Amino acid sequence: MGKIYVLRLGHRASRDKRITTHVGLVARAFGADGIILSGEFDESVIKSLEDVTARWGGPFEVRFEEDWLRFITNWKKKGHIVVHLTMYGINLPTIIKDIRVAYSRGADLLVVVGAEKVPRVVYEMADYNVAVSNQPHSEVAALAVFLDWLFEGRELLKRFKNAKIQIVPTLHGKKIIVRDST
Amino acid sequence: MGKIYVLRLGHRASRDKRITTHVGLVARAFGADGIILSGEFDESVIKSLEDVTARWGGPFEVRFEEDWLRFITNWKKKGHIVVHLTMYGINLPTIIKDIRVAYSRGADLLVVVGAEKVPRVVYEMADYNVAVSNQPHSEVAALAVFLDWLFEGRELLKRFKNAKIQIVPTLHGKKIIVRDST
Repeated sequence: MGKIYVLRLGHRASRDKRITTHVGLVARAFGADGIILSGEFDESVIKSLEDVTARWGGPFEVRFEEDWLRFITNWKKKGHIVVHLTMYGINLPTIIKDIRVAYSRGADLLVVVGAEKVPRVVYEMADYNVAVSNQPHSEVAALAVFLDWLFEGRELLKRFKNAKIQIVPTLHGKKIIVRDST
Repeated sequence: MGKIYVLRLGHRASRDKRITTHVGLVARAFGADGIILSGEFDESVIKSLEDVTARWGGPFEVRFEEDWLRFITNWKKKGHIVVHLTMYGINLPTIIKDIRVAYSRGADLLVVVGAEKVPRVVYEMADYNVAVSNQPHSEVAALAVFLDWLFEGRELLKRFKNAKIQIVPTLHGKKIIVRDST
């Protein structure tokens, strides 16, 4: 299996703080290896995501890349695959098998999700422009459902390493295990 | 089949505008019949959701309920089912079949998603407290993945009525059909 990274394009610190944080939390919870943030540099988002990883476990990489176009170009040069999530793309049920096959053969995947309007070049460079339904909704939801289909639900049972906090699933109420970090 | 409504608890106009809007867009796109907003009254969210429904099709109901506790109480009195999405609940893969059975027998579902801390009474009143993984992420993602599992992916192909705009899925680029509304 290859690695999976999420690239968040066009973050605006004034508007997108919470949505980008949700994108990052979804990337981690749904089994990606890391997130690359682009757009405006925003330390508060990076800190939130690193903090969650420190408490709930990892590994999960968070970093900022100013030059996202060079990043995508390099990714493709290495023979890896770029998936761009967009409502204009091919609907997930039609295309997921092709992507699963590429991934199971060892290709790394870069899953690109935009904030503000995504530049045309991203549509052109993407190996797959994938729609999670061709309806307007949310990049947070699109990313979660894409990863859930890719992993066929197994990611919901993923065990994280070095977790200090862990939930015990409960029908009613809250049950948490806290591990001492001494 | 029963009806499915989403109840968004504890909306704060200052903080949650975009997240609540994403929750509403996901509810519509992933096949719910409507959303009930609670917490602070926020006309801008209602307008955004109604505007998307007018352009992209429906039906999709949007309304505000001040007294969410009475709403849930009445829902249960009618013999319908309450699902509360929370990371503390039973993980989705363990519980989805029970919920699918109840739904296919005609029960209406109320899917509750919180914003700020959810009051304990919600955990107690819910027939099912469901975790979409027991990891912290996003109510937007949790709702999307829950509905996707409930409908087993069929919602991604849903056709909406009276749509003025429709996307033609495309491998690279954007293709839209706009219908005249004369």
